[in-house]
Amino acid sequence: MNKHGGYFGNKKEVIDFSININPIGISNEVKNVIVKSLDHIGRYPEIDGMTAKKSIAEYEAAHVDHLILGNGAAELIYLYARALKPKKVLIIQPTFNEYKRAFKVVGSEIYECIMDKANDFLMDTHKIIDAIKEIKPDVLVFCNPNNPTGRYTSRQDFQPIVEALDETNASIFIDESFIDFSGLPSYKPYIENQPVFILRSMTKYFAVPGMRLGYGIGNKTIIRKMAAIKEPWTLNCFALNSVDALIHDKDYILRTKQWFETEKRWMYESLKKIKNLHVIESHTNFFLCQLLNHTSKEIQEKILQEDIYIRTCEDFTGLDDTYIRLAVKEREDNVKLIPCLEYALMI
Amino acid sequence: MNKHGGYFGNKKEVIDFSININPIGISNEVKNVIVKSLDHIGRYPEIDGMTAKKSIAEYEAAHVDHLILGNGAAELIYLYARALKPKKVLIIQPTFNEYKRAFKVVGSEIYECIMDKANDFLMDTHKIIDAIKEIKPDVLVFCNPNNPTGRYTSRQDFQPIVEALDETNASIFIDESFIDFSGLPSYKPYIENQPVFILRSMTKYFAVPGMRLGYGIGNKTIIRKMAAIKEPWTLNCFALNSVDALIHDKDYILRTKQWFETEKRWMYESLKKIKNLHVIESHTNFFLCQLLNHTSKEIQEKILQEDIYIRTCEDFTGLDDTYIRLAVKEREDNVKLIPCLEYALMI
Repeated sequence: MNKHGGYFGNKKEVIDFSININPIGISNEVKNVIVKSLDHIGRYPEIDGMTAKKSIAEYEAAHVDHLILGNGAAELIYLYARALKPKKVLIIQPTFNEYKRAFKVVGSEIYECIMDKANDFLMDTHKIIDAIKEIKPDVLVFCNPNNPTGRYTSRQDFQPIVEALDETNASIFIDESFIDFSGLPSYKPYIENQPVFILRSMTKYFAVPGMRLGYGIGNKTIIRKMAAIKEPWTLNCFALNSVDALIHDKDYILRTKQWFETEKRWMYESLKKIKNLHVIESHTNFFLCQLLNHTSKEIQEKILQEDIYIRTCEDFTGLDDTYIRLAVKEREDNVKLIPCLEYALMI
Repeated sequence: MNKHGGYFGNKKEVIDFSININPIGISNEVKNVIVKSLDHIGRYPEIDGMTAKKSIAEYEAAHVDHLILGNGAAELIYLYARALKPKKVLIIQPTFNEYKRAFKVVGSEIYECIMDKANDFLMDTHKIIDAIKEIKPDVLVFCNPNNPTGRYTSRQDFQPIVEALDETNASIFIDESFIDFSGLPSYKPYIENQPVFILRSMTKYFAVPGMRLGYGIGNKTIIRKMAAIKEPWTLNCFALNSVDALIHDKDYILRTKQWFETEKRWMYESLKKIKNLHVIESHTNFFLCQLLNHTSKEIQEKILQEDIYIRTCEDFTGLDDTYIRLAVKEREDNVKLIPCLEYALMI
């Protein structure tokens, strides 16, 4: 089990750039729902969360048969692995560590295709197709936009990979946990005719990771396999009751959009100006940066003296101790980070 | 997936005798913790819930290495099955359905030893030992006090079974989700030297099933196996933050004890007087009853007309459509149930 998920050190107040959560924070509507849920806490949640599932189906314009709810996205990564028990899994790296762990637990052979850092980890279609032909995986795993690189691959660019996988009848697992921020097109259209499963997290965009709420949209056959072995009552009443308030909070969604457009650009321009740091273009709410003359631990420690916490990336396959990941936060926090980072990297 | 976990029909207000939850309801202390937790919801919960685990360790006078937390007891049933992947599982029936499903999911062969209804489902040690000798199970599963029969087996009575299992090196899974109500001795002393895992649910006793919170106390080797494949972040921040308030709420625990002692006895005496009904003695907060001239569905429907909901038991192995299970609730509700049931069974 890795140790991430934010700062858990001894300092009382830290600006935490290590977790990729919407900095606007929890909306009042959701707070109200949670307080009201205290009246329901003495009952079991709906065993399959059907009411919440129907709301998400409407929101996603998908049929409930294409949907499955999760106790956070994490439950669904592990459930997918257990439901498919693939012999060979090919993971496009660097990416979120839990995929590898989930498939290892069910005994899959793990193959990794590492994107080139010289090319800022852009998806290298040729390299992936070569790997598919050689390995003949049962499942291909990738994250889009990708954590921690922030890179997004369009369906058009991905299409040759789908065709290569078609030949071996392989399934595709796509984590779109960060796509809401980007506003870019989902791979959803694939679910009708391809063995595709798409993972979504609601807690990052709506800033409620403590509540645990995710869902998957997928090909019906895959959803059926997952539902057949899913554990009962995995979602708590707070998460289930909040779904409606989350997806209908137009004001929150609008404010998030405005924040994202302004702050992501500001952050990118600011990071670009910092010496001894190479920032990678991102399509979502965080930036992967390479330190040119320092180690990530060294900089993390220096900056923590100023009560700012950043994510080092040595635990990601294909990265090393020179990478850091920075979430985009609100301006008042971002303006504190930039000079600190600049100063730390100057020494 | 079974359909239970309370009434989810169309009636707005129903007195629900189908769920075995402390009727005193959620304590104000816990409500306060949940409202305060709104300030933490924007962070990930501790990945392994160590702070809460330490509190439970103190409460149980157990070392943290003997403990594992669960997103409700349900997570731990499935996690145990996955961690041990036993070839043969022997389940003492009738009992909670999820054990069977959890072991089926991992491909175990399921064997069932059904206790005799003529003997009110008392544990039949000889029958179980015979089954152990014949089947040579890798895991024995039982629930104590047992859901739905309410029967409790003492360690002394169980000891010959432990000895029979010793010969085959089998593990024992004991669900003590309802033991807090009974106040009877736990099987905890076994965990040091036997391959025993004990499941606990905090949400029944503390009336917060919507929050999802359970834990297991077990032999270190088993806990280690489970922790090695446990999914991250399964417990939400509300559940984790509430642990301290729950276990230290002496007033709540005292009130529960007083309610249990009075109401359980009252309910038993009242049920005994009802014609065409045989009530089985119970050591916990619910009663299994056999209807002598009616089917359970028929009586469930009749009583629902009075806005009272009861659990039929046809889905339990070893029971049929003549059994109902009744939770003990507060007097004001119990006094409504008794005459309704009496009247329905008279016709």
